Amino acid sequence: MPEVSAPSVARLEDAGYAVVGKTNLHEFAYGITSDNPHYGAVVNPLDPGRIPGGSSGGNAAALAAGLCEVALGTDSAGSIRLPAACCGVVGFKPTWGLVPADGVFPLAPSFDTVGPMTRSVSECTAAMKALGALGEHSDRDVRVGIAWTVYADPLVRARVEEAASLLPEAERVELPLPGNLNPAFQVEAAEVHRKLFAEHADLYGDNVRRKLEAAFAVEEEAVAASLAEREDYRERALEAFEGFDVLLTPTMPMVAPPVGIGDLALRERMISLTRPFNGLGWPALALPCGPAEDELPASLQLAARPGEDALVLAVGKALEAALSEPRAPSK
Amino acid sequence: MPEVSAPSVARLEDAGYAVVGKTNLHEFAYGITSDNPHYGAVVNPLDPGRIPGGSSGGNAAALAAGLCEVALGTDSAGSIRLPAACCGVVGFKPTWGLVPADGVFPLAPSFDTVGPMTRSVSECTAAMKALGALGEHSDRDVRVGIAWTVYADPLVRARVEEAASLLPEAERVELPLPGNLNPAFQVEAAEVHRKLFAEHADLYGDNVRRKLEAAFAVEEEAVAASLAEREDYRERALEAFEGFDVLLTPTMPMVAPPVGIGDLALRERMISLTRPFNGLGWPALALPCGPAEDELPASLQLAARPGEDALVLAVGKALEAALSEPRAPSK
Repeated sequence: MPEVSAPSVARLEDAGYAVVGKTNLHEFAYGITSDNPHYGAVVNPLDPGRIPGGSSGGNAAALAAGLCEVALGTDSAGSIRLPAACCGVVGFKPTWGLVPADGVFPLAPSFDTVGPMTRSVSECTAAMKALGALGEHSDRDVRVGIAWTVYADPLVRARVEEAASLLPEAERVELPLPGNLNPAFQVEAAEVHRKLFAEHADLYGDNVRRKLEAAFAVEEEAVAASLAEREDYRERALEAFEGFDVLLTPTMPMVAPPVGIGDLALRERMISLTRPFNGLGWPALALPCGPAEDELPASLQLAARPGEDALVLAVGKALEAALSEPRAPSK
Repeated sequence: MPEVSAPSVARLEDAGYAVVGKTNLHEFAYGITSDNPHYGAVVNPLDPGRIPGGSSGGNAAALAAGLCEVALGTDSAGSIRLPAACCGVVGFKPTWGLVPADGVFPLAPSFDTVGPMTRSVSECTAAMKALGALGEHSDRDVRVGIAWTVYADPLVRARVEEAASLLPEAERVELPLPGNLNPAFQVEAAEVHRKLFAEHADLYGDNVRRKLEAAFAVEEEAVAASLAEREDYRERALEAFEGFDVLLTPTMPMVAPPVGIGDLALRERMISLTRPFNGLGWPALALPCGPAEDELPASLQLAARPGEDALVLAVGKALEAALSEPRAPSK
């Protein structure tokens, strides 16, 4: 039971939001199923046979079930955006460092990013303002680049490309994916848990235990290579993005996967398009964009350079409005 | 000392080739530096301050130094193509299974592919014919797709794109990179070495020991996910490649890296553009394409659907000829 509220919570309360509860999540926020060995598995309100995503699965489920208007999460590789995608809600990972992470139990501090989850972009923008983390967005011509749709399953890809077609200025941009950012992540998770794990290994669930054991064993050379890759990727991404303002990609390559496959088998593909922005520190918004495989929602992702949070939300709001207009059936 | 020649060697001998020696390589072919703890480090004849690549580094060095005309290697993630790229020679990984791998100490059998390394595409084609592994190529219009140049360092990228511009029909194709194929690879390497390692761990060099220890520890779920990804990637690649005949990419994102960085730090980025074709089983040719960073050679890669080996070599030969024509200096 904490003695003080985290500054992010206090700011929301100061702005008039009332806390209605804490939600379940993946153990230590280190996983993407929200199947928690201590508190049970979070259920996806859209379909109980599908995972809600994670780590902030309880947030997304609570929003999808109408239990709250805003939920605060932390996103280190996709923990806000993946559950938003799986449950058909909105999730925003701001620029790294923009919302204070004090009071959050860390996962990998140089990746951890606090941000809001909501049911609409307007509510998300309002929450960011209440968090004191958003300036005004100045109107200007915005050049949108679209990338990575080739990694998505057919109907997710189709929905994301249809959404892009609603933005008249959208053009293909060849943005590289990063190399392996995981060792840089693992070394921080290992540092956070080393003492606690040494003393209480038996209290950890099997899924997180196995990931931490792998993290403790990660090679020094692999960490150095991963850190160098992160630096290099930041430069390569900025260079490739030259001339563009906002990037549009799928949030996940797939819709919410079935229950029972498990975090270890699912995680790499699930985080493959969200983790890059944790490596870059760029703001990134997950926005539902229509029914895809098995009639479950696809989610698109809008990202931009660090500090361009207001721009991402402004384009997100416009796209959300355009997506809600009646359209001719897709071919 | 083997009692019989491997069928691939016997076929070359039957065709009139004479064996002049065996070359050094990375221990158990499991690495990309060819810094062998038992036999010493292979020297790159182009620059002794640069690695020769691996695992078949001795092959590429022998070719670059003029010690032989053809060298036989095995390519499981790039072991023929990477040293060819580092040493400025030609290396060809045929369609998986086309050249018999009998007599080769395995690394990861479902990835291992025997093929020739030479100084020219004609010599490579002749060696493939001598190996009994090449039909005739029927002339037809060839549509070339270019991909992945965005992953390369600036001058490597420039050389590969200039080479593409020599092919009038070359167009961008959005070919996805695979997810993590390594667990599928590791589980096979672990199986190959389990008994030998249990009995002789002390005889293994440190670099390969560490990779094998990681391979022995790989999670069952990660292997299953990796195998599923390989199957899925084969389908996605064919689909994305629809309408194209030959693919042109960089072989490596960089020129030959400096000596002293080491396999563990270098390997992921070095194999990132070669390993996909081991996952796919597609034939892939590495061909030098002009000086890049530090005046070291860039290498381009030509690939095609399984069984299209003759087509890859035919386009490679045409491109090699076009690259040797005098051109205006690049901008």
